Amino acid sequence: MPEASTIRDVTIAPTHGGVTAPAGFQSAALHCGIKAAPQALDLTVIAADGAASAAGLFTTNLAQAAPVLVSKQHLVHTSGIARAIVVNSGCANACTGDQGMSDARRMASDVAAALSCDATQVLVASTGVIGVNLKIDRVSSGIRNAVAALARGKGSETARAIMTTDPFPKEHAVTVHTSRGSFTVGGTAKGSGMIEPNMATMLGFLTTDARVAPALLDRALRQSGRDTFNAITVDGECSTNDSLFALASGASGVTIDDDLYPALTDAFFAVSKELALGIVRGGEGATKLISVHIRDARSIDDARQVARTIANSPLVKTAVHGADPNWGRIVAAAGRAGVKFDVQRATVHVGSVLLFENGLPHDDAAPRAAEHLKGKDIQIAVSLGTEGRQSATIWTCDLSAEYVRINGEYRT
Amino acid sequence: MPEASTIRDVTIAPTHGGVTAPAGFQSAALHCGIKAAPQALDLTVIAADGAASAAGLFTTNLAQAAPVLVSKQHLVHTSGIARAIVVNSGCANACTGDQGMSDARRMASDVAAALSCDATQVLVASTGVIGVNLKIDRVSSGIRNAVAALARGKGSETARAIMTTDPFPKEHAVTVHTSRGSFTVGGTAKGSGMIEPNMATMLGFLTTDARVAPALLDRALRQSGRDTFNAITVDGECSTNDSLFALASGASGVTIDDDLYPALTDAFFAVSKELALGIVRGGEGATKLISVHIRDARSIDDARQVARTIANSPLVKTAVHGADPNWGRIVAAAGRAGVKFDVQRATVHVGSVLLFENGLPHDDAAPRAAEHLKGKDIQIAVSLGTEGRQSATIWTCDLSAEYVRINGEYRT
Repeated sequence: MPEASTIRDVTIAPTHGGVTAPAGFQSAALHCGIKAAPQALDLTVIAADGAASAAGLFTTNLAQAAPVLVSKQHLVHTSGIARAIVVNSGCANACTGDQGMSDARRMASDVAAALSCDATQVLVASTGVIGVNLKIDRVSSGIRNAVAALARGKGSETARAIMTTDPFPKEHAVTVHTSRGSFTVGGTAKGSGMIEPNMATMLGFLTTDARVAPALLDRALRQSGRDTFNAITVDGECSTNDSLFALASGASGVTIDDDLYPALTDAFFAVSKELALGIVRGGEGATKLISVHIRDARSIDDARQVARTIANSPLVKTAVHGADPNWGRIVAAAGRAGVKFDVQRATVHVGSVLLFENGLPHDDAAPRAAEHLKGKDIQIAVSLGTEGRQSATIWTCDLSAEYVRINGEYRT
Repeated sequence: MPEASTIRDVTIAPTHGGVTAPAGFQSAALHCGIKAAPQALDLTVIAADGAASAAGLFTTNLAQAAPVLVSKQHLVHTSGIARAIVVNSGCANACTGDQGMSDARRMASDVAAALSCDATQVLVASTGVIGVNLKIDRVSSGIRNAVAALARGKGSETARAIMTTDPFPKEHAVTVHTSRGSFTVGGTAKGSGMIEPNMATMLGFLTTDARVAPALLDRALRQSGRDTFNAITVDGECSTNDSLFALASGASGVTIDDDLYPALTDAFFAVSKELALGIVRGGEGATKLISVHIRDARSIDDARQVARTIANSPLVKTAVHGADPNWGRIVAAAGRAGVKFDVQRATVHVGSVLLFENGLPHDDAAPRAAEHLKGKDIQIAVSLGTEGRQSATIWTCDLSAEYVRINGEYRT
């Protein structure tokens, strides 16, 4: 436990905007010609007014896209300093070989040239179809135009420019008030298939005007990401491109030290959770948000593993889709998760309705559980019935015929 | 390697029938009243003419149904001797507490009473909805009627009586001819959701008229099951009830020793593979059989893990459903499987078409791969690009909107 903080009266309140809500950031978005639809936004630049602290979390997939590899190299090279993030949608620049690496570096150097900074101070992210090369000339001229158009208040355009099959843009911001001053955290993210813990196919960008050392920013990003971006799953898929970046401009004048660190992570958590749940709500074909809460596990990892197994179970997801209080599928998924589980002592709740305990169902309660399942926000809670007292939550969505339609027809 | 065998001219040929194709077995099936539809077969007894060698493989799920627990106890108690198998469909007798255990034991003792053997010589299997008690009085009188009706040549009725959502019955038999005589292996199995390696929701019953010691029968069942029943997946789910039983009557007079053991396992493998692929072809909503073959892995376990990850990937399964040669999803699934994978040296074939090598796609080949994907038997082959030389195959089916419909409406 840290020593008693000198900070008083910390409050965190939602505020307007997204990545440009914090001071010291501008953005611009435009259609450069990657997406077929005319005027569809497919390129965005998020820029700090000067060198900012930077941190990144990346996909754990062994097939990593060129922008992931380039951004990792840049963060290592600069020890966590960046001036800007450039993002395109419509093309993942993954499995594109040497040309892909060259194109990702070109995106960084084009932004750097326009901003007069080093190319290693630019982070790159791409999302879209795998195995197709970027139309790099269009991207290049798009970048020049975007940098020329940088302005405050364009966060919502950035949020739209990073979308692929996302049904709606996702952005959020909060302001933290403390006895040492105020700072703001903003962010945007996109889904919407291939979403699974470990940064699976998802892009997320957080900005803050707090002054944060790169190492501390990295720690805050990992800590807040674990129970937000890394606690969601749409379909258990983990993509080649997932990236979560944070930039800290310092423009608020508030410096994050050990005392203020909890306030920063709380704010990161608040923004990240809102964005992460938005990704799940906007999951491909999703009609319901499902929270899977596991308790009485022997470790947090055990709890997460069971939660993830239930959250990725096609049978559970289709049952929720059909508003069927099929606790048997939940018990069966928990039983195959590979961690300790005592079916005689386990319990299953759907909403507030106890459906299973002492190895037996409460069938009389099923109609009330079915009512809960007709809603949009579904809670599943399972006690593993072990001696442990650890818990974890994973969020997912239901599995609908629309998911199959979207993914059976994505390219054809 | 075993010493040179004294057996000559071993041939294995398909023969007519299923579980009663081997000598020394009878069966009967009827409607006892578990399933709502009148006349729908929901109970079957498979009986040997005398005490038979017996072996079983069971679900690895920690939530195990009463019939699984009872059958395990019986096999341990008898050291691998059984007279009969009794199976009901329409009710899994899982998560049914003490009453469920009592009902499963009652099924065994009813069969035993009618056959004048010990109750521990009867194996029990159930499949259907979880958490509902058996209508045990109907089952009991059904068992009396079934035992009274036991006869040769009713294997196909047994195959139908074990079905739940299976679209078609599955049975197969082969006769093995050797210089030491001939013996027959027959079997039946049912799916059809909740199918995944480790005996996931599936019932399978093998019979043979070879004379096999219980320990050898157990070994043959495990060995042949690994690359057949345990190498299929429909949806990654693992049920509470999966059971695979083998009975050996000895009625052919051919005794399996070390020399004949390979012929027995080959025959078990032939019957099991036919039944297992039938389960996948009949998977819920399945329109295509997909074989996922992984090579150049560092171990067989590694190869199986990657194959299973690809086979359970909703994005791969929906792409195959839509005949989309989306090698990117295959590469992404391989990359997240958690085993060594070198994307620069990996290759991906769909059918005989090379779609990906040296980290790059062969886009010009995509139309030919799409043609292959329009068929019913799909081959996906991936080299992991490592120094290893191990390989494995997992079979699965595509993911269709029909799967969602079946499982969203199963109980409601």
